[in-house]
Amino acid sequence: MNKNVLSVNGGSSSLKFQLFNMPEEHCLISGYFDGVCSSSTRFIVRIGTKKYEETLTECDFAYAVDYLITFLIQQSIINSLEDIDYIGHRVAHGGEHYSQPVIINSQVKNTIAELTKLAPIHNPINLLCIEAFEATLPNAVHVAVFDTAYHQTLDEVQFLYPLPYELYERYGIRRFGFHGISHQYISTYVTEHCSADKPTRVISCHLGSGASICAIKGGKSVATSMGFTPLAGLMMGTRCGDIDPSLPIYLATNTPMSNRDVSEMMNNASGLLGVSGMSDDCRVLEEAGELGHSRAALALQMFEGRVIETIGAYAALLNGIDILVFTGGIGENSSIIRKNITDSLGFMGISIDEEENNNNSLFINTEDSNTKVMVINTDEQRMIARETIELIGF
Amino acid sequence: MNKNVLSVNGGSSSLKFQLFNMPEEHCLISGYFDGVCSSSTRFIVRIGTKKYEETLTECDFAYAVDYLITFLIQQSIINSLEDIDYIGHRVAHGGEHYSQPVIINSQVKNTIAELTKLAPIHNPINLLCIEAFEATLPNAVHVAVFDTAYHQTLDEVQFLYPLPYELYERYGIRRFGFHGISHQYISTYVTEHCSADKPTRVISCHLGSGASICAIKGGKSVATSMGFTPLAGLMMGTRCGDIDPSLPIYLATNTPMSNRDVSEMMNNASGLLGVSGMSDDCRVLEEAGELGHSRAALALQMFEGRVIETIGAYAALLNGIDILVFTGGIGENSSIIRKNITDSLGFMGISIDEEENNNNSLFINTEDSNTKVMVINTDEQRMIARETIELIGF
Repeated sequence: MNKNVLSVNGGSSSLKFQLFNMPEEHCLISGYFDGVCSSSTRFIVRIGTKKYEETLTECDFAYAVDYLITFLIQQSIINSLEDIDYIGHRVAHGGEHYSQPVIINSQVKNTIAELTKLAPIHNPINLLCIEAFEATLPNAVHVAVFDTAYHQTLDEVQFLYPLPYELYERYGIRRFGFHGISHQYISTYVTEHCSADKPTRVISCHLGSGASICAIKGGKSVATSMGFTPLAGLMMGTRCGDIDPSLPIYLATNTPMSNRDVSEMMNNASGLLGVSGMSDDCRVLEEAGELGHSRAALALQMFEGRVIETIGAYAALLNGIDILVFTGGIGENSSIIRKNITDSLGFMGISIDEEENNNNSLFINTEDSNTKVMVINTDEQRMIARETIELIGF
Repeated sequence: MNKNVLSVNGGSSSLKFQLFNMPEEHCLISGYFDGVCSSSTRFIVRIGTKKYEETLTECDFAYAVDYLITFLIQQSIINSLEDIDYIGHRVAHGGEHYSQPVIINSQVKNTIAELTKLAPIHNPINLLCIEAFEATLPNAVHVAVFDTAYHQTLDEVQFLYPLPYELYERYGIRRFGFHGISHQYISTYVTEHCSADKPTRVISCHLGSGASICAIKGGKSVATSMGFTPLAGLMMGTRCGDIDPSLPIYLATNTPMSNRDVSEMMNNASGLLGVSGMSDDCRVLEEAGELGHSRAALALQMFEGRVIETIGAYAALLNGIDILVFTGGIGENSSIIRKNITDSLGFMGISIDEEENNNNSLFINTEDSNTKVMVINTDEQRMIARETIELIGF
C-alpha cells in the first residue's frame, strides 16, 4: 500500500514542505512559507502546474502548520489528517549521535536540543517545527533526517583537526560536515544513472549561497569541505570559508571588533558580499563583472579559485575522479562558473562540451573526457522522503 | 674581484651563519649559536671537514657576533674585519614593502620595526641581530633578505581573503606567505637542473617542523599555503594549519581558554604534537607508529593527507605539474612520507622509483612518470648570499 510522506525543512524564518506519495515518489504538492514570525508571511504552493500564493499575518510555526494541513484538506490533496503517514523532518545537526535517520521520541528531541550548542540557530528552529507538526498530526510517525548524518562515514584522519586530541575527547571538536542530504541525493542519483564496475569516485560540488564539496567513494562520504560549523571550506555568499586560523583572534585583538563581531562578520559580511562590496548573489556579480566592476569580477574569481583548489585536493585524496557533479543554485545554473572551474582541470583529463554546458544538460563532458561531468538538480525534500521510508518501510 | 658574503639568520634563541666567497659560492665556514641569551650557549662550526664545538656563558647576540668575528680571524678564515664585504640578513617579514632585498639603512630598520605587529617574535630578533652586526662591522654593507618577498608576486585572487575588502585596505589583512627564501632556492635549483621549453609548473613542498607548499610558474610564486601568519596551511610540528575559522573564537567562548591561550595552543601545542600527544618529530612518530602507537600513526596520516590535498589543489590551480619537489627536514629525509604522499598522485601520472626514493636521490620519479619528482636539500643561507650579491653586484 502506498504511503504519503511529508518532507519538511524549517529555517530561521521559512518552512519548506513537499508531500510525496511513496514509493513512486509522486509529488502531490510542494511549497513554502516565507517570513514566518514576521509581520507578513508569504505562503506559496505548487500543485502540478498550478501555483497558489497568499499573504498571512501573525503566522508563527504552529499557525503555519495548521494552515498547511487545512489547505491540504480544502484542496482535496488529502481527505483527513490520517492520510499523512510519515513526516520527515530535516534537522541541521545530529552530532556524533546520528549517522542514520531516527524516529522522533522525547529522547531524540532532548538530544536535538542538546546539540543546539553546535547549531545554535538551526536546531532550535528544527525542534520548534517538529513540535508544531507533532501537535497537529499526533498520529503520524515523525522522523528526523540529519544534514550531518551522511558524513559520519568520514574516518578519523579526515574528521579530526590537527589540534590537541583532548579537544575532541573533552569538547567534541571535530569536522561534522553539512549539506549531507544534498550530497547523499547526488550520490544516489549518480549510482542510478552511471554504471560502474568498481566503487565510483565522485566529487559533488554543492554551490549555492552556502557551498560545500564532498568526496564520495563507493557511495560513502570520505571528505567534505564544511567542518565543525558550516563556515568552513569554500568561499560562500556571505561566509569566508577557510582563512588563516590566526585571523579571528588577531582581528578581535587588533581592531575595535569583539569576538562576537568577528564571528558575525565571518558569517554574514564576508564571502562574495565582502569582497565585492556589492552582493552575495553570483548572478548580480556576473553581470556587474561584465560591465567592468572589478571587485565583482575579483569576488567571482576567488570563489572559482577555491572550488578549483578543493576539487584538486579531493581528486588527490581519491587518487582520481570518475564523476564530477555540479549542483545547488550556482552549480545548476551558472555555465560560466562551471566553465571557468573545469577549464583548470584539463590536466586530469576533464573537458566539457560548450553547448551542453550552456544548456545545463545532465552530462556536460565531451566524449573523450576521462571524467563524466554532470549537472544535477539537487532535491533534498525527495531525499528526506526516501530516507523516511527506508527507515520505516511500508 | 671576489667578495665575501656572510649570511646570517637570527632566531628566537639561535644565530645561524655561513660565509661564502662569491661568485663561486665557496663556503668558507658555516655554523650556529644555540641557546643565545640562556645560561649556556653552544657554538658549533664546520670549516671544510673540520668541526668545532664550544660552550659559552653569558652570551647575548652582541657577544655572539663579536665572538664569531674574533673566531674567524683567529682561524685565519679572514684577515681583518674588512674581509667581510657584505652581510645578508634573513628578515622574517617584509610586509607589502619589500618584494626584493634592500640595503639596510635607518629607514629600512624603522620599517622592519613597524612590521613587528605582523611578526611579533621574529622581526624584533632580526633587528637585534642586524644592530649587533652593524656595531661590529660598521664598514660592511648590510642587506635585508625577506622571507616573505618571494611571494609578493601572488595576484589579488590569491593574496586576498574572502573577508570584507575593507580589512585589507584598513588593516592590511592579506596572505603574505613565508619560507620564501627556501622556495626561491628550490625554483632556482630546478631551473638550473631541468631544461624547459615553456614556463615550468613547479610545486615545492617545504616539509619541516614548519611546513609550507608553494606553487611556482615560470619561476614566480603564484600560490602558497602559509598566510597572514605562518600558522596557516599545512599541519606542522606544533602548529594546526587551516581549521574551521569558527573554532578559535568558539574555543575561547566555550572552554576555559582565553584568546591568548587559544593562539598559544594553535601555535605550540597542536599539529603532530597535539594529535599524537607524544612528539612533534616525524622520526619519533614513524618509529612509534611502527610499534603500534595508534595516535602517532594517526598524526602522520593526517600530516600526509594535508600535503596530498594541497598538492592536488595546486596541481589544479596550475592545471598540471611539471616538477614536484620535496625539501626541508622531513621532505629531504623521510622516504616513507614521500612514498605515502606520491602514492595518492598516480591519477595525474606521478610515479616514483622505490630504490631512488629510499636513497633520497635527486630524482626519484620513474622514467615513465609524467612529472619529475625531486628531493632537494634547501639552502637558505646560500640563497641569501646570492640575493645579496645580486642586489649589490661586484
